[in-house]
Amino acid sequence: MLKAWLHEDRELIADMGVFQLYRVRARSPRTGQYRRLSVLHAGSWVNVVALTPDRQVLLIRQFRHGTGEFTLEIPGGMVDPDEMPAQAAMRELLEETGYAGDPPVSIGVVTPNPAILNNRCHTFLIENCRWSREPELDSGEDIEVMTRPLQDVPGIIAAGDINHALVISAFWWLSQKHPGLLHP
Amino acid sequence: MLKAWLHEDRELIADMGVFQLYRVRARSPRTGQYRRLSVLHAGSWVNVVALTPDRQVLLIRQFRHGTGEFTLEIPGGMVDPDEMPAQAAMRELLEETGYAGDPPVSIGVVTPNPAILNNRCHTFLIENCRWSREPELDSGEDIEVMTRPLQDVPGIIAAGDINHALVISAFWWLSQKHPGLLHP
Repeated sequence: MLKAWLHEDRELIADMGVFQLYRVRARSPRTGQYRRLSVLHAGSWVNVVALTPDRQVLLIRQFRHGTGEFTLEIPGGMVDPDEMPAQAAMRELLEETGYAGDPPVSIGVVTPNPAILNNRCHTFLIENCRWSREPELDSGEDIEVMTRPLQDVPGIIAAGDINHALVISAFWWLSQKHPGLLHP
Repeated sequence: MLKAWLHEDRELIADMGVFQLYRVRARSPRTGQYRRLSVLHAGSWVNVVALTPDRQVLLIRQFRHGTGEFTLEIPGGMVDPDEMPAQAAMRELLEETGYAGDPPVSIGVVTPNPAILNNRCHTFLIENCRWSREPELDSGEDIEVMTRPLQDVPGIIAAGDINHALVISAFWWLSQKHPGLLHP
């Protein structure tokens, strides 16, 4: 039977705003030995499968600084401290794409990386999305918004054009909860 | 048409061994303004959908220090500097579970988080896995190995017992490349 490790102490190494890096001193329940581990603290994240009335999915193209590459993703971002995840999903969708739709429906929650990150990412489905107003991008964002037929998504992922694990996980949830949507 | 940002300078904030944290100075191609961004550099990762001859999937249960929780995952880890990803997949499977099988077949590649991480995670399918020897765990690892019928995986994810985005992405690849395996 596995036992939980004890985190006896943690030291803030760097506060980067979007996350805080800690070094944790942990004691093994099996050997009693100590180990130093690296843990990133971040707030919750959300992403959104946003569908138009004719079953197109909203995708955004942007430059991502981790990989230094352009990515194709679904809308999403960080949950603000005073927000519920569903509110953040509506806000990020509107800010990044200018679209709004039905009330968000939670379709799944993942841990982005339980080995090094403490947070969760909540995936919402928002149907009947329609263009509502101009996107509100901050000076650091360049985003291109596009729609694609939902049933093209498996092929887009197979081609490597969508490769973000959190986006692929979102489509896993969609395929499980609403199999008819992705493979009509 | 979107243009790439220029990373003009980067400063090492912390070298944690498993990853290095950098602060990057980047210039917007649209506005010319500078922004400071946080980027984590890490080597490639692998994970493995390992199947026994009777279509059971190998799962491991372990304590994860990011979330401070026990997780149910597939085997995986970091690719060593002198390794190919396929070699790392075989090595991690053997070290963590004691199982070995057919040559690994690549079924997909994801970016774990292109916003903040520079690396990729390679997913392999290894079939006909059989117990070969005792696992080789280091003093910091406590791992419980188990097998589950592959067709139970969607239910295990739906119940929240598997919630790691990289593991769910691995099963996305499996469901797309070998639909008959997951839903017989």
